[in-house]
Amino acid sequence: MNIFVVGIGLIGGSFVKDVKAKMPTAKVYGIDTNEAHLEEALSLGLIDTKATYADLSLADFVLVSVPVDALQRELPKILDAVPDDCVVCDAGSTKQQICEVLQAHPKRRNFLACHPIAGTEFSGPSAAVLGLYRGKTNIICEIEKTAFALQERALELFGLLGMRIRYMNPVAHDRHIAYVSHLSHISSFMLGKTVIDKERNERDIFDMAGSGFESTVRLAKSSPAMWAPIFEQNRDNVVETLEEYIQNLTAFKELLVREDYEGIYREMDKTNRIKDILKGLPEAKKMAQDTSKQ
Amino acid sequence: MNIFVVGIGLIGGSFVKDVKAKMPTAKVYGIDTNEAHLEEALSLGLIDTKATYADLSLADFVLVSVPVDALQRELPKILDAVPDDCVVCDAGSTKQQICEVLQAHPKRRNFLACHPIAGTEFSGPSAAVLGLYRGKTNIICEIEKTAFALQERALELFGLLGMRIRYMNPVAHDRHIAYVSHLSHISSFMLGKTVIDKERNERDIFDMAGSGFESTVRLAKSSPAMWAPIFEQNRDNVVETLEEYIQNLTAFKELLVREDYEGIYREMDKTNRIKDILKGLPEAKKMAQDTSKQ
Repeated sequence: MNIFVVGIGLIGGSFVKDVKAKMPTAKVYGIDTNEAHLEEALSLGLIDTKATYADLSLADFVLVSVPVDALQRELPKILDAVPDDCVVCDAGSTKQQICEVLQAHPKRRNFLACHPIAGTEFSGPSAAVLGLYRGKTNIICEIEKTAFALQERALELFGLLGMRIRYMNPVAHDRHIAYVSHLSHISSFMLGKTVIDKERNERDIFDMAGSGFESTVRLAKSSPAMWAPIFEQNRDNVVETLEEYIQNLTAFKELLVREDYEGIYREMDKTNRIKDILKGLPEAKKMAQDTSKQ
Repeated sequence: MNIFVVGIGLIGGSFVKDVKAKMPTAKVYGIDTNEAHLEEALSLGLIDTKATYADLSLADFVLVSVPVDALQRELPKILDAVPDDCVVCDAGSTKQQICEVLQAHPKRRNFLACHPIAGTEFSGPSAAVLGLYRGKTNIICEIEKTAFALQERALELFGLLGMRIRYMNPVAHDRHIAYVSHLSHISSFMLGKTVIDKERNERDIFDMAGSGFESTVRLAKSSPAMWAPIFEQNRDNVVETLEEYIQNLTAFKELLVREDYEGIYREMDKTNRIKDILKGLPEAKKMAQDTSKQ
């Protein structure tokens, strides 16, 4: 099988790392506008050969893992270039606009709209890790618009990588992902900004920061080139989640100002049930499985 | 040496776990209003014997690791009960009010105001872990008010546990810790609340949550009984940090509403330098040391 990755960073690189481990006969082609990343991917053994869109006629499977603004621009061209029996998957964090852009494309049946919920705050080929997708959720949108045989090929590959599949419509995907992913990133970025602004002249102060600050602010390391287009494409949902978040923070502040410490206790106590919710996350389940295997 | 721990949960339990590993001859006494915790600490081997305030006359070193409201109430009584050559340390996340309360205590010289920046989101004796304090910062306030020989005894013990010491005045401590710790907790609690409120009727939606959400919301698992009194004692500073955080979030939202995506990119890009700041954190340094040792 000829597997192409367009955009060979953390997401694409981790994907082919797993593919090569599970399917040693697969040949992996890398396409990237960043020549340095391409060379790095080659020397790391993530890809077997560098390629261009002209080579896409050889492809059986294409993963397009580029920022969501580039996705809208490149996916139509990629679909134009692949053969009829090739499946093209994306990995974008937004789905509605991407599905709209491709709605009337003559090769729409060759496209499978995917959002694998996996990643780290790092980027580039050197950030690729084996097993990134194991136990993770892959959200697939508008599955019915993809040719059946091509659905099968993609699902088989996702199965090899140990992914859990969930089907969702693009509008629901974008609304929910705004809460469980996009809002977390903004909350983290603005926490980082607030602390940096305040402590500008007191560098030593970060000695006072513990692992709590570190985990809450971790996502503020994320790539702006990846995230600005996500916020653009999911603007309305993100604005709504931000308004609710700001409202909740303001209400908490008002409790403090009014010295209503019972109210503060109650707010935290109610939110403590996040413990049970987090226990049910794919990540936690995977860890529990890993532990039980030992 | 007779070591007493008042409040045998995560903080006190981890402390004596290390003490027992480093000083096998030390005898550890546990005092707790929660009889179940005391029994658990005994069966886990964290303490050698259960004790009461009446036994404090035997103490050489006392760690008081209880919520900060209980600290204000209990520390004066504990100081009353210890012998003249005993040092009493607290582990509270606020320092100003606690130092004020003890300012005129006849045994003020027996007290050392400490804030070890260490912990997890879990609590109780079973949450105690070995090595929790290694490489972590312990902030000591008003060191000059503690008898010299007692400073020495405490610092020797902290040194055995591998802690880094920083000296600070209580007012500065509370102002800075509001940014690097207290605000992170509120940001996390309110993120959890926002998502739970929205997704109340759609439990499956948490399948969409990845490790990003998980780490950003981790602190929302923290104990309200511990945190409500911290916010109470550090109210003015916390209100100020919250106002700045809300202001930054509102400004980010306005950029989105105005579709100023370059502005959004710039905000994130500037905050990305949190990467370098986090690299300098004690936690990160410790991990780098651990790796280089392997």
